[in-house]
Amino acid sequence: MVSKSEVKSKCPQRWKCVVAYDGTTFQGWQSQEGGNTIQDLIEKQLAKIAGQKIRIEGSGRTDSGVHALAQVFHFDAVWPHGAEKLRIALQTGLPRSIRLKAMRRATRKFHARFDAKGKIYRYEIYLGEADPFIAAYCWSLRRELDWAAMKEAAKVLRGKQDFWAFSGENDRTYETTVRDLRRLDLVRRGRKVSFTFEADGFLYKMVRSLTGALVNVGLGKLTPAQVAELIKTRRRIPGVVTAPPQGLFMVRVIY
Amino acid sequence: MVSKSEVKSKCPQRWKCVVAYDGTTFQGWQSQEGGNTIQDLIEKQLAKIAGQKIRIEGSGRTDSGVHALAQVFHFDAVWPHGAEKLRIALQTGLPRSIRLKAMRRATRKFHARFDAKGKIYRYEIYLGEADPFIAAYCWSLRRELDWAAMKEAAKVLRGKQDFWAFSGENDRTYETTVRDLRRLDLVRRGRKVSFTFEADGFLYKMVRSLTGALVNVGLGKLTPAQVAELIKTRRRIPGVVTAPPQGLFMVRVIY
Repeated sequence: MVSKSEVKSKCPQRWKCVVAYDGTTFQGWQSQEGGNTIQDLIEKQLAKIAGQKIRIEGSGRTDSGVHALAQVFHFDAVWPHGAEKLRIALQTGLPRSIRLKAMRRATRKFHARFDAKGKIYRYEIYLGEADPFIAAYCWSLRRELDWAAMKEAAKVLRGKQDFWAFSGENDRTYETTVRDLRRLDLVRRGRKVSFTFEADGFLYKMVRSLTGALVNVGLGKLTPAQVAELIKTRRRIPGVVTAPPQGLFMVRVIY
Repeated sequence: MVSKSEVKSKCPQRWKCVVAYDGTTFQGWQSQEGGNTIQDLIEKQLAKIAGQKIRIEGSGRTDSGVHALAQVFHFDAVWPHGAEKLRIALQTGLPRSIRLKAMRRATRKFHARFDAKGKIYRYEIYLGEADPFIAAYCWSLRRELDWAAMKEAAKVLRGKQDFWAFSGENDRTYETTVRDLRRLDLVRRGRKVSFTFEADGFLYKMVRSLTGALVNVGLGKLTPAQVAELIKTRRRIPGVVTAPPQGLFMVRVIY
């Protein structure tokens, strides 16, 4: 006779994990040749614990240099010792720049990517020369921004519409480029400016493209009316620059 | 005939520079074999500009891993193009983790170390597991601190007295170990705790030793009365641990 708990302890279970990382020294989230990605490092440590290769599935990629306050991933593993001990075992061997914030047992059907109902990103800008302590976590701009024009452009960008003009140029394999930008807040505190974006999903490089466009509106290189035109015409123009990665933070995945 | 301004442009002048640095990847301030110190990197860039080796003199050393918001140093150099251009020329070639915040012409008699009337340091503690973005800038403690006991110990430590028991063990070549600790503030905001120290001068590892003692008071391993006893007896005991370097910031040099 095999008891119910013994069976349970031998069957792989699904785990949901929340991870924060400083993207500065990594080649992004997604596993790749060379192995210096967040996914690769976590999978390496997971293989040590489990004694076999286990794939983890993230809620989505982040690019090289982009940070996360709470990225989410799932995986299946046999682990009879409880969630917190699994978190600690997995954390051991990971660098200080990757921190597992929470580990929970998930239902068999949970999927970190497919179940995501939305995401929140934040982009940080510093107006001036940034100190060494924040230089890796913001876009340092030496010029003033026209706040009123930016607010107007943000109004144009909010809502459910086609963001083709604000997607990365090399990866347009989407079924649709329509996204619902439910929230776009611009906040300024002294020299620190931050943009918060919430949508049902984001296209590749969408947040950095929107940020680049907003900044160019702030610098007078693009008008809010032109931004509205871009949404309509689905044409990417040079005014839509891609903001540098180090100012971008994945803040939350909404399930 | 040589004009006064020509003479001036050919004579070395004294320059005072304020620098912020993230100490994480450096072997401290002070020049040493291997060359991976803040002083070495600045001198290397200065040699490139000046075409000759020029020594810089800091207000004092900081240890490996210790940060500075505003360290001060001086040097003598011929530079006819003005202070801001010198700052920019020197900044070029320095890593992002070292930032020259200000450059000014100083009088011939100015000395970054001997003229310092005092210094301010801050030590940052995080109660809990620190996120990757602050892990390199704080001491992460997993336990609660007895705030009342720490406040009491701080009261004992303030003032002009002999801090022998709170100096580094390998460098006791001081004429006197009496220092005037003019200010010691303990502040807590949520999980962030910070100690601010101001004195006419500090002994080697004094701030980190005081911090280590205060934390041990907070953990109940040392009593405020024992702290008072240490001042009197000038004996370092194991309760005076040295707090790790990454939580320490040189905040200001007072002239």
